[in-house]
Amino acid sequence: MRILIVNPNTTGSMTEKIGAAGRGAASPGTEVVAVNPAMGPESIEGYYDEAFSVPGLLDEIRRGENDGFDGYVIACFDDTGLDAARTLAAGPVLGICEAAMHTATMLGGRFSVVTTLARSVPALEGLARRYGVADRCRVRASDVPVLALEDPASGAVRKVEEEIARAVREDGAECIVLGCAGMADLAADLTRRLGLPVIDGVAAATRMVEALVGLGLRTSKVGGYAAPLPKAYAGEFGRFAPGSDPETAGVGETERG
Amino acid sequence: MRILIVNPNTTGSMTEKIGAAGRGAASPGTEVVAVNPAMGPESIEGYYDEAFSVPGLLDEIRRGENDGFDGYVIACFDDTGLDAARTLAAGPVLGICEAAMHTATMLGGRFSVVTTLARSVPALEGLARRYGVADRCRVRASDVPVLALEDPASGAVRKVEEEIARAVREDGAECIVLGCAGMADLAADLTRRLGLPVIDGVAAATRMVEALVGLGLRTSKVGGYAAPLPKAYAGEFGRFAPGSDPETAGVGETERG
Amino acid sequence: MRILIVNPNTTGSMTEKIGAAGRGAASPGTEVVAVNPAMGPESIEGYYDEAFSVPGLLDEIRRGENDGFDGYVIACFDDTGLDAARTLAAGPVLGICEAAMHTATMLGGRFSVVTTLARSVPALEGLARRYGVADRCRVRASDVPVLALEDPASGAVRKVEEEIARAVREDGAECIVLGCAGMADLAADLTRRLGLPVIDGVAAATRMVEALVGLGLRTSKVGGYAAPLPKAYAGEFGRFAPGSDPETAGVGETERG
Amino acid sequence: MRILIVNPNTTGSMTEKIGAAGRGAASPGTEVVAVNPAMGPESIEGYYDEAFSVPGLLDEIRRGENDGFDGYVIACFDDTGLDAARTLAAGPVLGICEAAMHTATMLGGRFSVVTTLARSVPALEGLARRYGVADRCRVRASDVPVLALEDPASGAVRKVEEEIARAVREDGAECIVLGCAGMADLAADLTRRLGLPVIDGVAAATRMVEALVGLGLRTSKVGGYAAPLPKAYAGEFGRFAPGSDPETAGVGETERG
Amino acid sequence: MRILIVNPNTTGSMTEKIGAAGRGAASPGTEVVAVNPAMGPESIEGYYDEAFSVPGLLDEIRRGENDGFDGYVIACFDDTGLDAARTLAAGPVLGICEAAMHTATMLGGRFSVVTTLARSVPALEGLARRYGVADRCRVRASDVPVLALEDPASGAVRKVEEEIARAVREDGAECIVLGCAGMADLAADLTRRLGLPVIDGVAAATRMVEALVGLGLRTSKVGGYAAPLPKAYAGEFGRFAPGSDPETAGVGETERG
Amino acid sequence: MRILIVNPNTTGSMTEKIGAAGRGAASPGTEVVAVNPAMGPESIEGYYDEAFSVPGLLDEIRRGENDGFDGYVIACFDDTGLDAARTLAAGPVLGICEAAMHTATMLGGRFSVVTTLARSVPALEGLARRYGVADRCRVRASDVPVLALEDPASGAVRKVEEEIARAVREDGAECIVLGCAGMADLAADLTRRLGLPVIDGVAAATRMVEALVGLGLRTSKVGGYAAPLPKAYAGEFGRFAPGSDPETAGVGETERG
Repeated sequence: MRILIVNPNTTGSMTEKIGAAGRGAASPGTEVVAVNPAMGPESIEGYYDEAFSVPGLLDEIRRGENDGFDGYVIACFDDTGLDAARTLAAGPVLGICEAAMHTATMLGGRFSVVTTLARSVPALEGLARRYGVADRCRVRASDVPVLALEDPASGAVRKVEEEIARAVREDGAECIVLGCAGMADLAADLTRRLGLPVIDGVAAATRMVEALVGLGLRTSKVGGYAAPLPKAYAGEFGRFAPGSDPETAGVGETERG
Repeated sequence: MRILIVNPNTTGSMTEKIGAAGRGAASPGTEVVAVNPAMGPESIEGYYDEAFSVPGLLDEIRRGENDGFDGYVIACFDDTGLDAARTLAAGPVLGICEAAMHTATMLGGRFSVVTTLARSVPALEGLARRYGVADRCRVRASDVPVLALEDPASGAVRKVEEEIARAVREDGAECIVLGCAGMADLAADLTRRLGLPVIDGVAAATRMVEALVGLGLRTSKVGGYAAPLPKAYAGEFGRFAPGSDPETAGVGETERG
Repeated sequence: MRILIVNPNTTGSMTEKIGAAGRGAASPGTEVVAVNPAMGPESIEGYYDEAFSVPGLLDEIRRGENDGFDGYVIACFDDTGLDAARTLAAGPVLGICEAAMHTATMLGGRFSVVTTLARSVPALEGLARRYGVADRCRVRASDVPVLALEDPASGAVRKVEEEIARAVREDGAECIVLGCAGMADLAADLTRRLGLPVIDGVAAATRMVEALVGLGLRTSKVGGYAAPLPKAYAGEFGRFAPGSDPETAGVGETERG
Repeated sequence: MRILIVNPNTTGSMTEKIGAAGRGAASPGTEVVAVNPAMGPESIEGYYDEAFSVPGLLDEIRRGENDGFDGYVIACFDDTGLDAARTLAAGPVLGICEAAMHTATMLGGRFSVVTTLARSVPALEGLARRYGVADRCRVRASDVPVLALEDPASGAVRKVEEEIARAVREDGAECIVLGCAGMADLAADLTRRLGLPVIDGVAAATRMVEALVGLGLRTSKVGGYAAPLPKAYAGEFGRFAPGSDPETAGVGETERG
Repeated sequence: MRILIVNPNTTGSMTEKIGAAGRGAASPGTEVVAVNPAMGPESIEGYYDEAFSVPGLLDEIRRGENDGFDGYVIACFDDTGLDAARTLAAGPVLGICEAAMHTATMLGGRFSVVTTLARSVPALEGLARRYGVADRCRVRASDVPVLALEDPASGAVRKVEEEIARAVREDGAECIVLGCAGMADLAADLTRRLGLPVIDGVAAATRMVEALVGLGLRTSKVGGYAAPLPKAYAGEFGRFAPGSDPETAGVGETERG
Repeated sequence: MRILIVNPNTTGSMTEKIGAAGRGAASPGTEVVAVNPAMGPESIEGYYDEAFSVPGLLDEIRRGENDGFDGYVIACFDDTGLDAARTLAAGPVLGICEAAMHTATMLGGRFSVVTTLARSVPALEGLARRYGVADRCRVRASDVPVLALEDPASGAVRKVEEEIARAVREDGAECIVLGCAGMADLAADLTRRLGLPVIDGVAAATRMVEALVGLGLRTSKVGGYAAPLPKAYAGEFGRFAPGSDPETAGVGETERG
């Protein structure tokens, strides 16, 4: 089985961290490849960055289909481009927020998400409503920029931990969800130290995609996730038009972590 | 006052129809300009098309800011790129689904949306939940491709009317919402003939944006719609990076209908 | 175009303030008339006052129909008598809570309402549920009686501002909604000073009714807002019976601010 | 114990039927009095009628307080004036829709309400949401005017039964709620013949108010149901102003069935 | 009329207290019997205890049917085994949480539940959602073990009162619901001292069951509460199999308080 | 890794089928053991059967803990005893309804559950609300008793297929969930023939538990799923009391399929 994790931003060190988390979560015998697009934002902090990460993300999904991947993980906690990716992929596609939130509901009652910047909170509250968990979930910001998580000297980890402590104390949280792919390396240690499940979406989504593939289940094509209809795309996006040759549709280089 | 309507697909005849609907709805003294991006899909039928329409749409919003527009309408019923556009614009930005659904709630109880293809129904049901109207709204498909609405010989209008008739008969609909920008020219005639409000989102959104601008209200910048943070965008999207020179950020030609 | 704003209480100074807010919000060429009934409570602070304001309010709507008004605003934040008024009016009728809450959702994510007395909070929470915004809205009381807003020496404005400050600090509010028609004169200054949208429902509703009228949309008459059925009304309410002569149905003098 | 049932319309034959239902439901030793206001609509069919029934209804509640009644039932299925009545009464006040819907949830899962005219459906759907039962309740109209229920020759009862049969067949209803006080005499016979609970709100509310009074519970006065604040009421409603002498507040004659 | 209250735990002193509360709430002429099973947990503090209390509880319901009881109260605030009990009983069956929550909605707006241990909060939040009151209800724990309520020296009552004080101060609670059958003796005194309704579920449920029985209403048998289908039960539970002789199905002695 | 699947009814042939489904779904290297209690109902058709299956189920979970199992599946579509099982187990515990519903949301939009008897529908609708999917899920009954699924001559499979066909035609279902553990052997064939995902909860839950165990995640013990408190259990349930010796707590023989 082969799973492709797409980090929708262009920061290679984060892709490496994400790939490590995915490989650490997968079963023996499952190949996990992590990539990021060559075009787009270096981090995703709000709706605007998100919008410009999607074309590159979808290009990676299309390449993944050509390369025969069985399932996909979108490794940004906004679940960037999730619906569009599902129209493209035959196999299952999971977002890391989606996977982490479902996971939290299977392990406890109330849970809290600790994310990076306050500007990301409304989007995550919207996802909590979409996934049907809003009445048991609180979203908190730790005031840490995404790329500060890549810098050991930034004090970011300490701030995340302090916010988690507040969530446990004030929210009645039974589980914690780490609200950014860049926090993937913190989950195991925090779970052990805090004595409650601390969930990393990258690991959760990787293992859940593996489960869905193992079950022989694929994305339904009879409704909203039907394959894109062939049509013309004008201008430089012409190469992404449904029906164009996917072999030549690459956007340039990608890093496979 | 100057309002920019962005049709996020690249079909000029639809942009013209949309522009006519917007101009017909605006007050005297309000300038309404309708444009479409030069790059992207010729119609938006599902999540994949939607994703590739957003960069061009945002580019139009950015140009609009440079040109001093006071408010914006996004003229696709999926409310494509709405959140991202709000981070970019100082003035208000409305989607046509959002405007039409709010309008329907001000004129009656239950309402039904009649859209184009079945594949678009799940996205619109999701918007109905987002806008808090899911318990009074039913979404129906008329099985009409978007571009068939541009072709008088296609029989599309008849199919839309038949679906509206079913909505009135079966759903207890007190209002009808036309679920595609390409139906903008049908509202007035249908309202008169059916004896209940038939709402076109293009007209509704144009007039509502005008109202918000007239009230001196602008998009809030203290939360999820804060301006994008300056950062590097890799590859061909570099010109869209927050902080880059917007004067030179154009994606090529755009049609101003 | 002619819009009638009905202040459902009988305090003329508030009607004048409301009229000024409505006229300030309307487009050039729109005539805005503000009235209040001659009978009923001097302020509306709770469900009981609300009930006794409705007959006078509806009488004003009926006169408005006779006078050919195109649309109506109900200028009490409880949206007093809104459904009944819609059965009477051909044109659109908006409540100021309804208009303000819809407006807030178009400009930001979470918002807070700051109203007068704690006893009004449950009614406004009920309206937030009715309008589908309960999951993004918090209602707060500033402990200011309605008529204190008419008295510059009461310190009411300072108390309202302090409560708004708490909402921004504690609720993650991206917009503020002023929860009483008597606060209509505070919005512009607060918007400027606080750096986020502060929404007055009187202005918002006036401009939105103008928008609906401009769109040629009228209240749907095929469901709950169908015209009242002709029937006898006993006792002194006989003159309000559907089918009785509206020309002679006046309840006495009204003030037109 | 003494319970006052107020039929908010002015049709005496309906008040008698309602009184009989209430007395039939009460325990031995409980005195049940049914009245209707002398002013207001002869039947309540929509929001407009409802508005004009409230002042007379509240006047009856006030008289009831003077007469020392222990609790109240509002015998219109719209739960007309319920919140206002609670501000006036020391004891509990129940609406018949409220009582019937709660009762249905205690006896089965899904239930259907069969009411009179289609125009009343949106109001009852709103009440279903208010009482937290919308996800298990469907509201149906039998196309029977309220006063047709007073006329044995109208065929109204047959139409109601046919609609109930459709509810059982199509909705998965485990209980039926009769959606008009004028149907109070049908419940026992239908329950026996249909083999599932058919609930009349008048009986249910009478017995539940009796229960609340028996428990020593009264309406909470610390929030939205606090007693009306003393203030001036202008014009002919002056006699209803909080603080005015209730002894002389009568609106004329009332019928005590 | 005869009502059986089943305390699903095996602590006789609590059964006595519960029986006193039920008898105090019932009308003259209603016989109230309180029992507890001979097998099962001595107190119910969490899901595990709950599971082992249900067989004994159901056995008491079955005996009750044989003894001709007209209705039933389940006197544990988790509403333990409520759905199963309804399949067994012809008459109505109420849980004390259900009855108390419905009662609270009839007397005020927001309310708070004060229960025993934090581990019980998630179950009660789930019941609040089930009964449709989650948006107006907050559940709080007083950190008091159930059996401490049986020990005057434990300080339990003081802790409960302190938590109630916090609920009134912080939650905007208009009513308080006591979240454990073991608090049944506190309601009357607290109601008087706090000046707002403090609701004991045992009393509320007893009186409401009495009301339902008095109305001639029984549990609906056409859906989820249909009588259990005859089938074999293996092992020691064989005596509970539907269709087996209920006369000989006793689990041993029960205490009838 | 070792996973224990507990079929909470006592029908060995169903346990074998369930075991086969679980083993077929698990990864190589995962040991899957399927058991059923020796005491309890031979099938679970409604709330009463469910209640009597829980003690035996929990006994199997306790044995599983003693035997060092890493995770658990409860193989009844009512998710019987799920919360109680979680208090007992260190590792994750999933219900098959829970797993199937989450799985459906990851593969499409709307889905339909096809279960056995109509009496089970209300319980499953309740689970859909609990898992946050009620707005996208419809539950249907095929009118097939559970044990008919064990009898090839019963025509049960054809009836299930006919109901699935109705769901696809009438509900807009993008996925189908099989609503009974006894249908576990139908999923693969139906998925292939119908061209959309047909989800068996036994397989889904087995693979998801495997995923959670693989991720190092365990049930949270800081809230509702805290370990049962030590206390006395009276009567024959004494051996189940928390703190009693689990080695000797067996209820007799169990079948390990």
